[in-house]
Amino acid sequence: VSQVGGVAPPSGPVLVIGSGLVGTSVGLALRRCGVDVHLEDLDRTALRIAESIDAGSSAPPPTEPALVVVAVPPAQLGAVIVDALRRWPGAVVTDVGSIKVGPLDQVRAAAAADAHRYVGSHPMAGSERSGPVAATAELFDGRAWAVTAHPDADAAAVGQVEAMVLACGAVLVPMTPSEHDTAVARISHLPHVLSALAAARLLDAPETHLLLAGQGLRDVTRVAGGDPALWQQILEANAPAVAALLREVRKDLDRLVEELTADRPHLVPLLARGVEGTRVIPGKHGGPVRNVAPVFVVIPDRPGQLARLFADAGDAGVNIEDVRIDHDPGRPAGLVEISVTEASADKLVFALGERGWVAHR
Amino acid sequence: VSQVGGVAPPSGPVLVIGSGLVGTSVGLALRRCGVDVHLEDLDRTALRIAESIDAGSSAPPPTEPALVVVAVPPAQLGAVIVDALRRWPGAVVTDVGSIKVGPLDQVRAAAAADAHRYVGSHPMAGSERSGPVAATAELFDGRAWAVTAHPDADAAAVGQVEAMVLACGAVLVPMTPSEHDTAVARISHLPHVLSALAAARLLDAPETHLLLAGQGLRDVTRVAGGDPALWQQILEANAPAVAALLREVRKDLDRLVEELTADRPHLVPLLARGVEGTRVIPGKHGGPVRNVAPVFVVIPDRPGQLARLFADAGDAGVNIEDVRIDHDPGRPAGLVEISVTEASADKLVFALGERGWVAHR
Repeated sequence: VSQVGGVAPPSGPVLVIGSGLVGTSVGLALRRCGVDVHLEDLDRTALRIAESIDAGSSAPPPTEPALVVVAVPPAQLGAVIVDALRRWPGAVVTDVGSIKVGPLDQVRAAAAADAHRYVGSHPMAGSERSGPVAATAELFDGRAWAVTAHPDADAAAVGQVEAMVLACGAVLVPMTPSEHDTAVARISHLPHVLSALAAARLLDAPETHLLLAGQGLRDVTRVAGGDPALWQQILEANAPAVAALLREVRKDLDRLVEELTADRPHLVPLLARGVEGTRVIPGKHGGPVRNVAPVFVVIPDRPGQLARLFADAGDAGVNIEDVRIDHDPGRPAGLVEISVTEASADKLVFALGERGWVAHR
Repeated sequence: VSQVGGVAPPSGPVLVIGSGLVGTSVGLALRRCGVDVHLEDLDRTALRIAESIDAGSSAPPPTEPALVVVAVPPAQLGAVIVDALRRWPGAVVTDVGSIKVGPLDQVRAAAAADAHRYVGSHPMAGSERSGPVAATAELFDGRAWAVTAHPDADAAAVGQVEAMVLACGAVLVPMTPSEHDTAVARISHLPHVLSALAAARLLDAPETHLLLAGQGLRDVTRVAGGDPALWQQILEANAPAVAALLREVRKDLDRLVEELTADRPHLVPLLARGVEGTRVIPGKHGGPVRNVAPVFVVIPDRPGQLARLFADAGDAGVNIEDVRIDHDPGRPAGLVEISVTEASADKLVFALGERGWVAHR
């Protein structure tokens, strides 16, 4: 049994209930550390696929599992967690669901005496794909993973779940269950809803109007492409927090409509709050927000050009913070937007220009 | 005088009024084709900077200009266009403002006899930076540029403006002024407002909650970082269209809040409309939307690694549709999301794996 980052992975068998994308990926990540993983799923096909890619065994664990990981859809979380606590009276039970208060309430209501063995968690990782075929041991590498201990949880149980998170390669973010649900309502669920509202409006647009679509529209609407059935369950399970935020948004919206129909609209205060909001999002690596500047480069849209571009940027000693390939209607050429620190933007433009690229800030 | 794409650039002097980012970039792009460009700006400093980077001469044109390009802030557009039509009775006048109906109405009201020489336009290009220092001859390369002819416009005037657009390297998108304003309300102004509403809510979040922020939040809120003073003018000038869309959004919002407070919320219909909406946005190069699949690759966050990655992807013969460098709290490693066609995703994962990368779908 190997260690990840100096932390021992869970000792004893781990049972993962649910072999979808996240459950199977947990199995793969733990198997990578030599953990004895067992899998359960009512869907025999999903289970067979997960077992075939070595995410764990479909046989029951030989002894009581040390840790049970519940990885089922949001609507079934509470019931399956309660059931696991009853079936395995010595095991620590966690889950990987996107909401944390509801399942804990169900545990407290239906299995109060066992609640000390339950510690919820939530990895901030996923994919537009789903199911065990999309699973991978690397899904959680470098991703935030919230562990939401409650006051009655055993310290040893919390430690067991934290060890699993670190063994999966994720970054541990401890918070309370209600803090978590409030946080994801604001940073994930509300943005998803507003993205869907923006995208829904496009359905009424004639095709010609959409020719003017730029990267901004793509950015705002991208997350709206997520699975409606899954998002229905997520939003339903976090309904009070999401509804409260939507009411705040509605107040802002009402004021905006009022201003827009007034003689002299005052929109700057709300727009300025938006600007401030973008500045409180932490930078990459959880560090402070760095001043990044975009540099634009025109490239032929064929294999090899990006490699040449990044080789030239690397030769210039400039570290690239982000990359975006921009929409380019009607031409077989791409416009690449490279984000670098403000301090190195001019250097990059100069270095790329010297190497024959059309680059500008 | 050279030609771009077989189309002759404007013959005779071009006068650009306003030497901000867009006006100065128009000057640079036309100078690139050998056009005699003259510049005007009430701000002497901006004018001197624009002239110093060879965007045109600050001296008055030697003869009446063939074309006048008005590139002033939205609130001043109408008045400056009308003034230009009066000052130059033989010139074609265009503008590069983000709204088109209001200025045309002002031209019709104040200079009806000259309206046939006015043809509005709007390049879908910009930057988070502003002013002549940020200007570049390549700003419009491959970008959509709407030309909004009205029924009374001379065919020759429309041709002159279209020639300018093509000389600037942009892709011509013809539409009527009211079509344009309706289109940008939906694909640019509404998404901007919703992005600002999502970002504004982040100001109430404790710092710890923001640790869970992912790429989705970054995407939804990015455009909200734009200049509030400029956006105030844009939204004010297109107020009726934006307000109408916001009222539609409010209806959806009201239904959502109602559903979220009901016993059994039905959110799927609206979420599904959002998914459909993301699918009507045209693909890159204005072509049909292609099925792209994300491939994730773990890379050390230091210069040279991206170059190596793209070289290896290029060797595999896979064309990269888009790239995203993901947030990675607390670790000095990056997670790169590469978008490729569905058909080549497995091939890329395999090829990268063979070359020692940790890659997965």
